[in-house]
Amino acid sequence: MIVGTVAFDEIETPFGKTDKILGGAATFIGLAASQFEVDSAIVSVVGDDLPQKYLTILEDRNIDISGIEIVKGGKTFYWKGKYHNDLNSRDTLVTELNTLADFNPKVPDNFKDADVVMLGNLHPNIQMSVIDQMSVRPKLIVLDTMNFWMDNSLAELIEVIKHIDVLTINDEEARQLTEEYSLVKAAEAILKMGPKYLVIKKGEHGALLFHEEKIFFAPALPLEEVFDPTGAGDTFAGGFSGYLAATDNITFNNLKNAVIHGSNLASFSVERFGTERMQSLKKEEVNKRLHQFKTLTQFDIELT
Amino acid sequence: MIVGTVAFDEIETPFGKTDKILGGAATFIGLAASQFEVDSAIVSVVGDDLPQKYLTILEDRNIDISGIEIVKGGKTFYWKGKYHNDLNSRDTLVTELNTLADFNPKVPDNFKDADVVMLGNLHPNIQMSVIDQMSVRPKLIVLDTMNFWMDNSLAELIEVIKHIDVLTINDEEARQLTEEYSLVKAAEAILKMGPKYLVIKKGEHGALLFHEEKIFFAPALPLEEVFDPTGAGDTFAGGFSGYLAATDNITFNNLKNAVIHGSNLASFSVERFGTERMQSLKKEEVNKRLHQFKTLTQFDIELT
Repeated sequence: MIVGTVAFDEIETPFGKTDKILGGAATFIGLAASQFEVDSAIVSVVGDDLPQKYLTILEDRNIDISGIEIVKGGKTFYWKGKYHNDLNSRDTLVTELNTLADFNPKVPDNFKDADVVMLGNLHPNIQMSVIDQMSVRPKLIVLDTMNFWMDNSLAELIEVIKHIDVLTINDEEARQLTEEYSLVKAAEAILKMGPKYLVIKKGEHGALLFHEEKIFFAPALPLEEVFDPTGAGDTFAGGFSGYLAATDNITFNNLKNAVIHGSNLASFSVERFGTERMQSLKKEEVNKRLHQFKTLTQFDIELT
Repeated sequence: MIVGTVAFDEIETPFGKTDKILGGAATFIGLAASQFEVDSAIVSVVGDDLPQKYLTILEDRNIDISGIEIVKGGKTFYWKGKYHNDLNSRDTLVTELNTLADFNPKVPDNFKDADVVMLGNLHPNIQMSVIDQMSVRPKLIVLDTMNFWMDNSLAELIEVIKHIDVLTINDEEARQLTEEYSLVKAAEAILKMGPKYLVIKKGEHGALLFHEEKIFFAPALPLEEVFDPTGAGDTFAGGFSGYLAATDNITFNNLKNAVIHGSNLASFSVERFGTERMQSLKKEEVNKRLHQFKTLTQFDIELT
């Protein structure tokens, strides 16, 4: 079960710009998770201005959308941003919360025993309320968040983090949350806050998985062109969670594989605007690129 | 055979500062290469102000120093720098070329058929003159350079690059040299300039090895503390070249291993000021950390 935004994005990069297109954390997470043999569902809220074709895109990938509340006369969350030339930074030009402002997710009864819950970036109180609604403790709760909540709702964020299994944040956020510059020290501090696992996302520099004393690293696949980074982190999280849901194996070794699968899918997401690449993505393409990941990182030094 | 500076460094980091200590590219390269079973030699120039104990450090690691010219009454190259709080950037406070200003390396006869030549960062004309002095084309010529020569001696740099096998530069330098932002495109352009292999060093973000269409990536080991980054790139290059010299196997698969060994040694170098950590480094410590590298990067997804 995925909880997060389904939204309008309007994006400008050095390579072009879009009109309002389908975006939102839950959208990217769902499309990525749907690459695996898993029953997924999105809990979200939109206005009735969201074209039906966008919901159809999700349904066509076998994502249950009965948990997406459609507010009559409401407007869908809208974000407009412009990326700088290096694509590593961006300016937010418009944020209209619209129906998201009053989002109070109701977990449908048939999802209350979901095995894996992926909480996209939202107010920590909303994330907490979803956990509270579960009838059975999920096997795995993954939570994504951002610096905005550290600035504005730190106590609530620290509270919800106590109840989850995996936290995914980026490197700067890990430093902000812990006031440690070293990511190794930051990770130690975060693992003491509750999560058993931590993923630190470093964008084009890959992702680190921390668990107890162990560290695993997955690079981002070096690409000729990054076209639009929007949704890369959510695609990572969706691939990571979807793989774990499909394999039903919560061990460090399998989380390593999940990090590779998440990185692999994210490498596709950035090749086109918005969700375009993820909509058309085929299993053969995904497998082929997994081979590239193996070539990229695997070596065979004889160790003594 | 290693050609490069043997120098005085004076370093300030957020963790402390040093007096004038042993530094220089050839020093770091030599200490790293000496971790492998290889006959190594340094060609360099110093003044007679360099304490004998510094040369003894090199000799104690079985590095032939007969190619280090000692200029009577001359002063040794001196660099003073201060790192910023994040350790990713630094200010050069003093650069005194001294005897290095007139460095005209003479390759001793017994090194003129060296199998592996590692050319540390120097004026490209000096690097070229070393290649010209070899009586036999070395099996492998590795060259390190920096943005300073791209700014000031670009034509000479492009000329020497035609004659080498492996170029090692950092990501910003790769972009500057090719005017390509994408490192994949930059690498394609550099491989067309002559080298069969390219290593792009990304500091704390690891290193990429390019050859034909192939890419390999080695992360930097995530460390609790980076104490002093001085010499990390040279230590990487020394481990890389030393391993290749010791194994006498110039294939892409073995260059992958060389990148891992170089990264592994660099992870030690940064733990103390200057060469301190490399002087005391033991084989057991090196092996132990290679295991960490394996844990950090190796996964076993079944591919179809």
